[in-house]
Amino acid sequence: MATIFLESKDNPKIKHLRGLIEQNTYRKKQGQTVLEGTHLCLAWLEKNRKLNSLFTTEKSLTNPEICDILDLYQGSVFVISESLYKDLSTLGTTLPCLAIIDIPSSSKSVDFEADTLVLENIQDPGNVGTLLRSAAAAGIQQVICTKGSAALWSPRVLRAGMGAHFSLATYENIALEDILTRFQIPVYVTSSHNATNIYEQDLTQAAVWVLGNEGQGVSDFALANAKAVTIPQPGGQESLNVAIAGSICFFEMVRQRQ
Amino acid sequence: MATIFLESKDNPKIKHLRGLIEQNTYRKKQGQTVLEGTHLCLAWLEKNRKLNSLFTTEKSLTNPEICDILDLYQGSVFVISESLYKDLSTLGTTLPCLAIIDIPSSSKSVDFEADTLVLENIQDPGNVGTLLRSAAAAGIQQVICTKGSAALWSPRVLRAGMGAHFSLATYENIALEDILTRFQIPVYVTSSHNATNIYEQDLTQAAVWVLGNEGQGVSDFALANAKAVTIPQPGGQESLNVAIAGSICFFEMVRQRQ
Repeated sequence: MATIFLESKDNPKIKHLRGLIEQNTYRKKQGQTVLEGTHLCLAWLEKNRKLNSLFTTEKSLTNPEICDILDLYQGSVFVISESLYKDLSTLGTTLPCLAIIDIPSSSKSVDFEADTLVLENIQDPGNVGTLLRSAAAAGIQQVICTKGSAALWSPRVLRAGMGAHFSLATYENIALEDILTRFQIPVYVTSSHNATNIYEQDLTQAAVWVLGNEGQGVSDFALANAKAVTIPQPGGQESLNVAIAGSICFFEMVRQRQ
Repeated sequence: MATIFLESKDNPKIKHLRGLIEQNTYRKKQGQTVLEGTHLCLAWLEKNRKLNSLFTTEKSLTNPEICDILDLYQGSVFVISESLYKDLSTLGTTLPCLAIIDIPSSSKSVDFEADTLVLENIQDPGNVGTLLRSAAAAGIQQVICTKGSAALWSPRVLRAGMGAHFSLATYENIALEDILTRFQIPVYVTSSHNATNIYEQDLTQAAVWVLGNEGQGVSDFALANAKAVTIPQPGGQESLNVAIAGSICFFEMVRQRQ
C-alpha cells in the first residue's frame, strides 16, 4: 500500500475526485462515482468489489474504521488536508473517507417476472436512496429509473441508500413505454383516485411498484397501465412522502408473504 | 394591505427574517419561525392561524398561489428582490414566499392515554419532518421530542412536515425519564434484539412509539421501559431509515384498526 500526500486542490487526482462528486455528466463520461464514508466503502468491499482509489486525512489513518478498510484495500491511499476534505465533502460525514469506484453496469437484462421498483421522475436524491434501501430490505432485487429521476449512482443517492445499491440490479434512463406493458405480473401505482385499499389487495405474488414524482405523482401512461392502490390515512393529511408511501407498500407485501 | 418594498439586506426586518431562518437560538428567543413556500402558508391559514408578515418578490405578486395567500392575509406584504430571496432561502423553493409566524405553544398537557410519537435524539430535520407527516396521516395527534432532537419548528423540519405540525400537539425538550413510565398504554421501540415481529403484535389499542437516533438507536432507558418490535427484512439489509421504520409501524397500526 502506497500512501501519497496530496496538498494542492489543483492536483489532477483532486480535480478528478471533485468532478465525480459534483458533476453528473462527468460521472457518466468517466463511468465512475464516489463512495463517501466508511460504511459505504466497507459495504462495497464486503461484496468483493474494488475501490479504484481512497482519500482520507492523515489523522484518520489510525482510525479503526479506516483501518478496517485498509485491511481490505491494496491500492494507493491519498492523504489530503482536513480543509481540503471539508471543501470536497458534500455530505458532512465526520470521518474523512472518499473512494472512487467504477459504476457497475447491469449485465442481466430486466426480469419481467420479478418484484420490481420503478422510479418515475423522482427527483430528490434522499427519496431515491431511501427507496432503494427499503426495497432491498423488503427483498426487491431490481430497480428501474426513468430519465427524469435523480442519478442512482450520485454520492447523495448512494449515501441515502446505505449500501442497498450493491445488492440491486439497477437500470437507468429507461422509458416507461418500453417496459411497463411487458411485465407478466401485476403493476401497481399509489393513487387516491379509483384505488383499492392496499390492505385489501392480495400482494402475495411478484409485483411491480411504480412511484412518481414528488409533486406531480405518476404519469398518465403509468396510471393507464397499472392498478391503483391507496394507503388509508385516518388523520386526513393530503399525502405521504413518496419514500414513505413506497416503503409501506413494500412492507405490506412482506407482511402478506410471511 | 400595504405593500412595502425592501431593498437592503441590512434592513431590520430582513435581519430579523434571516435570524429566524438561520438560528435556532434566535427562533427560541423570539418565539417565532418562518414558513417557506406557498403550501405551508396556505395550510397554516386554512387552520385559521395568523401570519405576522409575508415576504415575496414583485414578480410573484400576481402568481395565483400567492394571490390565494393574499386573499386570506390582511397584513403587510414585504417585496424583496429575487437575489435577496435566493440569498435568504435555504430550501430552494422556486416560488418566493416566506412568512413569519409565532410558534404555537401547546396549551394542553401530555395525554398519557393517547397515541403518541416520541423522538429521542433524531437529528436529521428531514427525518423529523417526515415522521411528523406520517404520524399525522396515521392519526397520531401528539409528538414529544427530547432535547437532542432537531428543533421541530425549524424551517427545514416544517418543510418536510408539509403542514403536519399544524394538526399535532407538540412538546419539545422533554426528558424521557419524566414521561415514559407515566403512559398507561403500551410503549414500543423498534429493535432487532429480543423483539417481537411487528406483524404478530396486537396494535389495536392506543400506543406510544419511541424512535431513536439515526446512528445509535434508542437509549437504554427507552429499551428498558418499552416493548421491542422488529420489522422483518427478507432482503437482509442491516436496517431501515428511521422515518421509514416509524412509518411502517404507524401504518401497521392503521391496518389493524381498520
